Amino acid sequence: MVKKASETKACDFVIFGTKGDLARRKLLPSLYQLDKANLLSNDTRVIGVAKDNFTLAQFHDAVRLSLTTFVKDELCEETVNRFIERCVYVSANFTKSEDYVAFKALVEPEKRVLVNYFATPPSLFGDICRSLYEQKLIQPDTRVVLEKPIGSDLESSRIINDQVSTYFNESQIYRIDHYLGKETVQNLIALRFANSLFASKWDNRTIDHVQITVAEEVGIEGRWGYFDKAGQMRDMIQNHLLQVLTLVAMDPPVNLDADSIRDEKVKVLKSLRPINQDNMYENTVRGQYGSGFLNGKAVPGYLEEEGANKASGTETFVALRVDIDNWRWAGVPFYLRSGKRMPGKSSEIVVYFKNPPHNLYRSTLRNLPPNKLTIRLQPHEGVEIQMMNKVPGLEQNHRLQTTKLDLSFSDTFKNDRIADAYERLLLEAMLGNQALFVRRDEVEQAWSWVDGIIEAWEESGEKPKAYPAGSWGPVASVALISKDGRSWDE
Amino acid sequence: MVKKASETKACDFVIFGTKGDLARRKLLPSLYQLDKANLLSNDTRVIGVAKDNFTLAQFHDAVRLSLTTFVKDELCEETVNRFIERCVYVSANFTKSEDYVAFKALVEPEKRVLVNYFATPPSLFGDICRSLYEQKLIQPDTRVVLEKPIGSDLESSRIINDQVSTYFNESQIYRIDHYLGKETVQNLIALRFANSLFASKWDNRTIDHVQITVAEEVGIEGRWGYFDKAGQMRDMIQNHLLQVLTLVAMDPPVNLDADSIRDEKVKVLKSLRPINQDNMYENTVRGQYGSGFLNGKAVPGYLEEEGANKASGTETFVALRVDIDNWRWAGVPFYLRSGKRMPGKSSEIVVYFKNPPHNLYRSTLRNLPPNKLTIRLQPHEGVEIQMMNKVPGLEQNHRLQTTKLDLSFSDTFKNDRIADAYERLLLEAMLGNQALFVRRDEVEQAWSWVDGIIEAWEESGEKPKAYPAGSWGPVASVALISKDGRSWDE
Repeated sequence: MVKKASETKACDFVIFGTKGDLARRKLLPSLYQLDKANLLSNDTRVIGVAKDNFTLAQFHDAVRLSLTTFVKDELCEETVNRFIERCVYVSANFTKSEDYVAFKALVEPEKRVLVNYFATPPSLFGDICRSLYEQKLIQPDTRVVLEKPIGSDLESSRIINDQVSTYFNESQIYRIDHYLGKETVQNLIALRFANSLFASKWDNRTIDHVQITVAEEVGIEGRWGYFDKAGQMRDMIQNHLLQVLTLVAMDPPVNLDADSIRDEKVKVLKSLRPINQDNMYENTVRGQYGSGFLNGKAVPGYLEEEGANKASGTETFVALRVDIDNWRWAGVPFYLRSGKRMPGKSSEIVVYFKNPPHNLYRSTLRNLPPNKLTIRLQPHEGVEIQMMNKVPGLEQNHRLQTTKLDLSFSDTFKNDRIADAYERLLLEAMLGNQALFVRRDEVEQAWSWVDGIIEAWEESGEKPKAYPAGSWGPVASVALISKDGRSWDE
Repeated sequence: MVKKASETKACDFVIFGTKGDLARRKLLPSLYQLDKANLLSNDTRVIGVAKDNFTLAQFHDAVRLSLTTFVKDELCEETVNRFIERCVYVSANFTKSEDYVAFKALVEPEKRVLVNYFATPPSLFGDICRSLYEQKLIQPDTRVVLEKPIGSDLESSRIINDQVSTYFNESQIYRIDHYLGKETVQNLIALRFANSLFASKWDNRTIDHVQITVAEEVGIEGRWGYFDKAGQMRDMIQNHLLQVLTLVAMDPPVNLDADSIRDEKVKVLKSLRPINQDNMYENTVRGQYGSGFLNGKAVPGYLEEEGANKASGTETFVALRVDIDNWRWAGVPFYLRSGKRMPGKSSEIVVYFKNPPHNLYRSTLRNLPPNKLTIRLQPHEGVEIQMMNKVPGLEQNHRLQTTKLDLSFSDTFKNDRIADAYERLLLEAMLGNQALFVRRDEVEQAWSWVDGIIEAWEESGEKPKAYPAGSWGPVASVALISKDGRSWDE
């Protein structure tokens, strides 16, 4: 039943933009891990493509450096050597079809599945596709893997998707959202649909509200100019948080096939209540970090970062109340928040269940804390249920206490290494399974909803609210949830 | 809010039968623990009553010996001395009213609440009550605490209860079932009614079935004659297992008052479907252990124990399928089993939830293991939820695995000593709270149901089925549950 990639057809795994950060930090180390886990076919090759002139030896050195720098566990020298043997390099200007002649001589689409990973700016996606087409390299099972961002709004995303789909069918296009490769995100489906404890109570009769938080400790990390054009809404909410939301909220799919799951996800996105100028004040908070302290160290504000335009009104924090207007979720808000320079790096989904209809313990515990299910994405991936238990002891009056039933992935599955999201996704792309990739209609539906919010913000002419680095965002984000009688998970 | 006994009225805590096993092993050590926890009023006294002539010094030595022998944690010498100072002794023949004159001189029912603990055979309960009455020792707040067994059937239990109630109101009578003093049993109410995750799904729509197991590792422990008259049904099922069952099955009480809870418990007992000759084969299995091995050591069979009558047909094991004919539980069987010479000492309640309506994982996991909630009474009191999670890793096909979310009381409440059941019950009796004691109608309802089963067994003329010591009972007990397509928890 467990299919190893080594039993599947070999691939020519091509990395366009092999010298970039993504390739060095994530793609090459992940491919190495797949090789180490014996999940690459013996005949699979990794083809780096970039503009520079590199000798094969120089490229091999670069690959080795990427592994020694970015692989977290101890390197297996045998695997490193085997992996480097797979690696070849082609110099090509992505926009020049004629540069692909050398490339064409290398790949063998009849023998090996051609998987093209576009780790380049999206403006190049169309050119690369066209060149592949002109070189007659596109077979029915040829694939392209697209890194984010796929546009910065609906219109620009359509242009990119149109360019790619001129040459490739949707079934050949793999849009990466690396959150979908995270173990706990994948586990969401099992948690929801393989456990009757949750399956039968996953709706507005039993759930009070849901919180999704993705907090980053880092600030801008030297990419001020890039980030400033996007902002936290485009950079995090439009993709990662909305993807997680769809998996939490979707109806049971017909089966676990890629399109059955994505059909349900897109239905959720279509049900998101639009946010516009009329309701943006109740439902959104934007923030921008000022200087502050993180782990006792002074850090600069967003406008003081290197390369900053002091007049920037770009948000580094977003909090949203999202309503899903469908039968399952009517009346159950989803609170989303994501920001930079938060007190710690943490991502979690918290499902708050409704309280029991009557509080038998009202004489001692006026507000019964609700049951909640926490799905931790990072750090320490795991699942946790908060429950009420009687505190052992001889006191009178049934003293209750919230207690946690905890399932830490790293404790529970001690012998199983928790794979990086990219390992899973690269493997799926090579195997031809699209379930963990984002379909075009999802991207567009998400942009369409997000565009409405960004427009409302822009039309308001207001700037994001300041918050000190090292805090949980502007105080307005507390008000956003507390006006509903709720509070952010702590 | 937390009321310490030291703030309540002082007691004359009288132990009738102070030389017996129960007093030495449980009552005196528990009173010592309450003293150590500062839960006894300074003026509370412990009065031992037995037939023998003891000097006060001899009694104090006996109390000290009981503490050094049976208190599990290290003794606090200061508490020991303080506790022994509280202890006085009276020699009395329980049946002779005139012997109570010395006793009367000791107690001060106007100053201290008189709590009479009957750690004697039940045949003496009536005589003691009459003597207390004749000595005019019964005040409105005078209490009697009755140890089991309260009779061996409905008729004999009525005689005992009638004798006691000639002199005491039901509100003065505290019938012990020490299972009700166990932390996890008390926690059952919190678990059920303070957690919406369970509160809203505690019925036949969401629960498939419930198992209650009380397995003893020990055999007869030198009390063959006593046990042989009772059998496992009377000794364990009629009281402990049925009490636990009522707490699992009862409807939400109006409040947490003693009678509100007991009203609901007795409703459950009234709803138990009678078992008689017509349905005893489907619903009951009796067993008697033969010789076998326990922890690698040969142990004798029940009929080979010291003092055994080789012809005995007394059961040392019972397995039952119990149906509760009410709206909540129609169609949800409760499987009960209890036996001696099982492979280990363990008591647990396991609630099996129904499977999700549809198995999305059918291609890889044809039988989805159900969610289950395990409440461990011993060893290691705690709560556990079995769930399905995706196994982390890069395999295809969503490999799922059952995992446990675990709440061990001793781990979670590290600083809280887990009190012995008797400590809780003695304290409650001194405080005058009857919630953890069994009301007369409960006892009688339980006997009435149990009598029907025992009669059916006797009329059948069949002997219990043999099972080897160190096994989980006769194979027929497996068939009892497997014919319903289920299996005992492992």
